[in-house]
Amino acid sequence: MPARCRHFTVALLTGLLIGPMSATASQPPTPTRAQLLAKSSPVEWRTPNPDNLLVMQLPTGRVLIELAPDFSPLHAANIRTLVRQHYFDGLAIVRVQDNFVTQWGDPASDDHGDKSKLRSLGKARSTLPPEYTRPLDPKLAWTALPDGDVYAPEVGFSEGFPAARDPASGQEWLTHCYGMVGVGRDNGPETGNGSELYVVIGQAPRRLDRNLAIAGRVLEGMPLLSGLPRGEGPMGFYAKPAERTPIESVRLASALPPAQRPAVQVLRTDSATFAALLDAQRHRHDAFYQVSSGKVGLCSIEAPVREHAPTPAKH
Amino acid sequence: MPARCRHFTVALLTGLLIGPMSATASQPPTPTRAQLLAKSSPVEWRTPNPDNLLVMQLPTGRVLIELAPDFSPLHAANIRTLVRQHYFDGLAIVRVQDNFVTQWGDPASDDHGDKSKLRSLGKARSTLPPEYTRPLDPKLAWTALPDGDVYAPEVGFSEGFPAARDPASGQEWLTHCYGMVGVGRDNGPETGNGSELYVVIGQAPRRLDRNLAIAGRVLEGMPLLSGLPRGEGPMGFYAKPAERTPIESVRLASALPPAQRPAVQVLRTDSATFAALLDAQRHRHDAFYQVSSGKVGLCSIEAPVREHAPTPAKH
Repeated sequence: MPARCRHFTVALLTGLLIGPMSATASQPPTPTRAQLLAKSSPVEWRTPNPDNLLVMQLPTGRVLIELAPDFSPLHAANIRTLVRQHYFDGLAIVRVQDNFVTQWGDPASDDHGDKSKLRSLGKARSTLPPEYTRPLDPKLAWTALPDGDVYAPEVGFSEGFPAARDPASGQEWLTHCYGMVGVGRDNGPETGNGSELYVVIGQAPRRLDRNLAIAGRVLEGMPLLSGLPRGEGPMGFYAKPAERTPIESVRLASALPPAQRPAVQVLRTDSATFAALLDAQRHRHDAFYQVSSGKVGLCSIEAPVREHAPTPAKH
Repeated sequence: MPARCRHFTVALLTGLLIGPMSATASQPPTPTRAQLLAKSSPVEWRTPNPDNLLVMQLPTGRVLIELAPDFSPLHAANIRTLVRQHYFDGLAIVRVQDNFVTQWGDPASDDHGDKSKLRSLGKARSTLPPEYTRPLDPKLAWTALPDGDVYAPEVGFSEGFPAARDPASGQEWLTHCYGMVGVGRDNGPETGNGSELYVVIGQAPRRLDRNLAIAGRVLEGMPLLSGLPRGEGPMGFYAKPAERTPIESVRLASALPPAQRPAVQVLRTDSATFAALLDAQRHRHDAFYQVSSGKVGLCSIEAPVREHAPTPAKH
């Protein structure tokens, strides 16, 4: 028996086609994602601002999160304040709800938690304006995705983040795609402050768009957040404290010694290479695919992230 | 600090609204999913045919999969033949690729596997016609979802399975939503036979639609398949055999003694209660939501499954 599923996978990952669905076998197969990225130009990659880059250390490894201050500046500032106080150190992943979110914060804030043990927010604010949407601004980078969307009039990418726009309301917002990090809150729209965060680990719950502030995106380490046992308590909260994954520390990359700063870059979503990746997903031709989808959904592609050699600190 | 994220979750799960987005606070909150299901009628639920119900026993618990012979009858028949031979007993989950699929089958079929240890397919066929799509048939149940779709001209549900249609081609097919089970294959379109299966554990990879046979849907036990450590080998294959999750057994429900048959029912997707669940997701009004999405994506809702008291076997 052939290794059908390994071949299946190779084809899935590499079957990137520029040609039409009716392409003949004489056409060369579409270049792979790795091939397209290898041909990219250095200027097509951006290095996240280290003031926007969170380094969350778990016992299992490192998670990198890029904040999105263009969309949620007050939340980014509050999260930076919390992180500089080492607020998250020793807290935990408290909830993993299947096909929904993984969430971390203060276990004492759980309904059954010991409120006397709640960690102080220190200099951080306890409430914030919602920042669920922001006004359209031509100065903000925007790469339209013309393939359509079920939930929003227009969708695309802004500085690597999936986003939506509504010309009628004059607003834009980040969308709840896989790997996007949101700000938990109570019922009141100003009750979120960034001390409890969640990340999408399943089908994009787009109904949350415009109802919660999105703080940013996981650039590295998603498997450490998505591959956890699901909580068996109500709504995926862990029923037993021992099931929680402890958070060793969260730091801003800018607070780390230069040699310890994560060396990552994100492909610009307004680059030719990202456009080629989109086309390659729309129009596949290789030995595996029978038909091409012709489309890419907003949450079906992510801006690629790569490691690069550490560079001298710029500040 | 309030348990903001617990409340956040309650609202997410229960914020089901029939009223408009501009509804005032005087409106009662939308009934919850649990409330809507509690009001459902017994005739709105169907009991899967035990010849279509696979019971996969893992060390961590039970996974139930409903086959979809209306869409892939030859694959269903071949999988039944494999299961009756106890083909899967002692095989393993060999691959967990983040935001993509969990896959199980014969570890010896891996590229590095010992081909001399490949398990025989016995009376099962080694190749099958593709069954990636099927002709439209008015006799097949169909509940249209009018909310739109990025990938297909028409989408909806057929007997609880998410599906798409193209009137131009006269074809319909099941779609790669979260929890759908597909048939791994090699490059040749007839090389799938059901001995290697995968389940979607992330954002729906709709580009696979019409390129692979879909065998059915996981009705119970998704967390046992999705909450596994991601494989660190290429494409999510486990690099070390010890990382694989062994499969204790797979049986047809019809082959189990009546008292051991899983007692599950699936809400009919052509029922009034399912329509109410869809509307409640489109139009939410409660203390948490600021705006309603107005739409439901095909892969953003699943036909509910419930346990019911065991009933006497009918055959």
